[in-house]
Amino acid sequence: MFETAEVGNKTEKAEYKRQEPKLRTALLEAQRGLAGSDFSVVLLIGGVEGAGKTEFANQLLEWLDARGIAVHAWGEPTDEERERPFFWKFWRVLPAKRKAAFLMTSWYSEPIIDRVFKAASPAQFDQRLDQVIGFESMLAKEGVLLIKLWFHLSKAEQKRRFSELEKDPDTRWRVTKQDWKFHRRYDRFRKVCGHALMKTSTGEAPWYVVEAADRRYRNLTAGRLILDALQRKLKDQTARSPGSPDRSRPKPNNVIRRLDLRRSLDAAKFERRLEKLQGRLGALTRKLHKAGRSLTLVLEGPDAAGKGGAIRRLTGAMDARLYRVNSVAAPTDEEKARPYLWRFWRDLPRVGRVTIYDRSWYGRVLVERVEGFAGQEQWQRAYSEINSFESQLAEFGTIVLKFWIAISAAEQLRRFQDRQKTPYKQYKITDEDWRNRAQWGAYEAAACEMVERTSTEYAPWILVEGNDKRWARIQLLQSVTDALERSLR
Amino acid sequence: MFETAEVGNKTEKAEYKRQEPKLRTALLEAQRGLAGSDFSVVLLIGGVEGAGKTEFANQLLEWLDARGIAVHAWGEPTDEERERPFFWKFWRVLPAKRKAAFLMTSWYSEPIIDRVFKAASPAQFDQRLDQVIGFESMLAKEGVLLIKLWFHLSKAEQKRRFSELEKDPDTRWRVTKQDWKFHRRYDRFRKVCGHALMKTSTGEAPWYVVEAADRRYRNLTAGRLILDALQRKLKDQTARSPGSPDRSRPKPNNVIRRLDLRRSLDAAKFERRLEKLQGRLGALTRKLHKAGRSLTLVLEGPDAAGKGGAIRRLTGAMDARLYRVNSVAAPTDEEKARPYLWRFWRDLPRVGRVTIYDRSWYGRVLVERVEGFAGQEQWQRAYSEINSFESQLAEFGTIVLKFWIAISAAEQLRRFQDRQKTPYKQYKITDEDWRNRAQWGAYEAAACEMVERTSTEYAPWILVEGNDKRWARIQLLQSVTDALERSLR
Repeated sequence: MFETAEVGNKTEKAEYKRQEPKLRTALLEAQRGLAGSDFSVVLLIGGVEGAGKTEFANQLLEWLDARGIAVHAWGEPTDEERERPFFWKFWRVLPAKRKAAFLMTSWYSEPIIDRVFKAASPAQFDQRLDQVIGFESMLAKEGVLLIKLWFHLSKAEQKRRFSELEKDPDTRWRVTKQDWKFHRRYDRFRKVCGHALMKTSTGEAPWYVVEAADRRYRNLTAGRLILDALQRKLKDQTARSPGSPDRSRPKPNNVIRRLDLRRSLDAAKFERRLEKLQGRLGALTRKLHKAGRSLTLVLEGPDAAGKGGAIRRLTGAMDARLYRVNSVAAPTDEEKARPYLWRFWRDLPRVGRVTIYDRSWYGRVLVERVEGFAGQEQWQRAYSEINSFESQLAEFGTIVLKFWIAISAAEQLRRFQDRQKTPYKQYKITDEDWRNRAQWGAYEAAACEMVERTSTEYAPWILVEGNDKRWARIQLLQSVTDALERSLR
Repeated sequence: MFETAEVGNKTEKAEYKRQEPKLRTALLEAQRGLAGSDFSVVLLIGGVEGAGKTEFANQLLEWLDARGIAVHAWGEPTDEERERPFFWKFWRVLPAKRKAAFLMTSWYSEPIIDRVFKAASPAQFDQRLDQVIGFESMLAKEGVLLIKLWFHLSKAEQKRRFSELEKDPDTRWRVTKQDWKFHRRYDRFRKVCGHALMKTSTGEAPWYVVEAADRRYRNLTAGRLILDALQRKLKDQTARSPGSPDRSRPKPNNVIRRLDLRRSLDAAKFERRLEKLQGRLGALTRKLHKAGRSLTLVLEGPDAAGKGGAIRRLTGAMDARLYRVNSVAAPTDEEKARPYLWRFWRDLPRVGRVTIYDRSWYGRVLVERVEGFAGQEQWQRAYSEINSFESQLAEFGTIVLKFWIAISAAEQLRRFQDRQKTPYKQYKITDEDWRNRAQWGAYEAAACEMVERTSTEYAPWILVEGNDKRWARIQLLQSVTDALERSLR
């Protein structure tokens, strides 16, 4: 991997002086192109200590117009970062379309260091790299131009560089104890980084290794690589073809049809069980909070399935400071300018909370699929993006449960008509509800595929018979309390 | 203040059962009104421990539709909160238009506790309350309906309540050591809170004290107060009159005209001083970072005044990880849905950073005033809002410097023409620039008033003669390095 970056490439001063202004003009032009484009740029600079990552970033910001470019580096995590899954801190700084971010440390830093110092096994390391590949692939497909540069120095060259910096009183501060500590492990770093780069150099997000021994050569080479990537992307900007509605038909024998919607509960039994379950739930959510765990509940189902009422029975038992109900509506323009899941990542609660989603990220594979707001490529890859998202939540200790409340088409009609007749319920029924109803089969097909593809051990779908509201509410409460009891044992 | 809340108000069970459904229906209707409105709601519940703030919040969320309502309570500050001024954590959760937030602790909690335990003098306490008044007044004027409820219990009643809770094993956990500690200081709390409420009960954001001894009375009374406030605001929603352009004429002898724009620097001198100043600046920003201080620079001036070039000379000396250049453009829809300064608060950097604004919050009193994007009432109160914002930055240890780069109208014309003639500069000149130029006098008048009203000791305006770019750049660098040296001594 690194042999080609130890061949002694150099740029003479006169040549640099000739080339630099040209490169700069072209970079500025590309930056103006970005400002009128439909994508964002994430530039990730990794590499060997002493190779001049910061030096180059300074140079690049001098070449470019620094406005609208954010530079990020992460040290010790803040406690807000510690209270969310690893990738949260990167999601939070994802630039909007037409903007750029430079990452001086990244999602590679921690896995590599953990592996070098054997805090992670080879298998764990590979698993984390697989997560990285998934993340980067999603970024690329969601319109983020990811440019990954790796600055390389040979062991001898690194030593020379450190010693040179240490000799000069003005630059001595730049060499830290940790630099020397890392230098002593140079060979191990080289091996681990080589593996990481090999594995994560994909067609969508390839690594470019830059020989960094000569500053002028490094700057010109890195600058040109960035310019090339930008120019290619600018040329390549094919307008995304708009999605077309997906009107698949449901299979005749599917998980939803297999539900027995006649199941019901009488009022007296309901009241008894409700009171008992709510008492347990109240105590369990306090226990959850104390334990620093979180609970994420997703509610999906046809219009008028009774999601709101079920949520009310859940929250009725909880302390208002510990839960939040998120109702998922149309994205804002800031959300539209970023990858799809950004809006959910940005709002991720701190640990110890219950978050209930009345509709959720599954909109991508339900309404957006059926109505064609998302193209086929988008909603099809959403299954694995969502699985990855939920697995990160689960790994972090969040209990994730997802409910599909099923009702029959006849029951939905009855409820729609009831809403139209009752004055204070009229606001609840809109033309959109009737339009969605007309696509009953397509929604059923989409829901079945969703359950099939995203019901995982760590974030299962629970299908609830919803024709009888009392039955549905008790099922939900029961599932939630059971899951909490199991997890908080 | 609290005598009227110790008279023994009670609601009988039968009466409650009659009133509650009516209240709930009306609240739900008001909530639907909010969803179609032009304002947001911040409900702040304060009061004596044991008065049932959480109990009531739970009840209220049960009455209302919990979707879109966020409940916030702050405990120990996180380190990200600690790295910003006190009000940052409240700005960060300000709801967008049509949404509501319930604050279970607020900007009152810390000042009151500090005063009770004598961590703050009476004068410091009053100063903090004045800040609160300013903040709340701004919220009210920016379209936030602020509802402030105070739940009161007499000392005897508080004791009774704690003892009652402690007797029941199910509720024992709700009474903490701190509750009893506070109870022993009840009289002092009463005095301090009384003073705070009296002082901060303004026409725009009055306090409502609720007698909380009887749960049913408390719930109905608080619910009705919220309903009333909502209904009044909904009825009152007069469309904001759009602003009209302000074309004031500048005074003939003003701070800008008094500048000697012929001042200049020859190239050799410039290069010598530039190199020296940049070296100092690089070292000083590292020192700033180490000291955990921040630097905020604001650059304003006519189009083509040379802000971009000056910024380049500043950043050329700094580590890319330590600075950020923010170019202020049109607000996003999320920003438009909140008070004006929200967009600047939300992006407030962590300590140890340099933030450079190429145009800034002063847009309110410059372009928005001149073009009528803001009404007169809005831009006139912006002076004190901005002063308050900057004073909070300064109090927190941020060094704030503001530069007005002045050029003559003739010099601007020369630069515009140059931009039009030079192919790679053409993108820099737009029709808007020519339109702004036609309002030269109005901008000059606005700039003079801005300097007059917002040049403070803690955040001074520095006027820079800009006809000669070299001169301007050196003045800027010199001012910044001098200020850093003074502050980091």
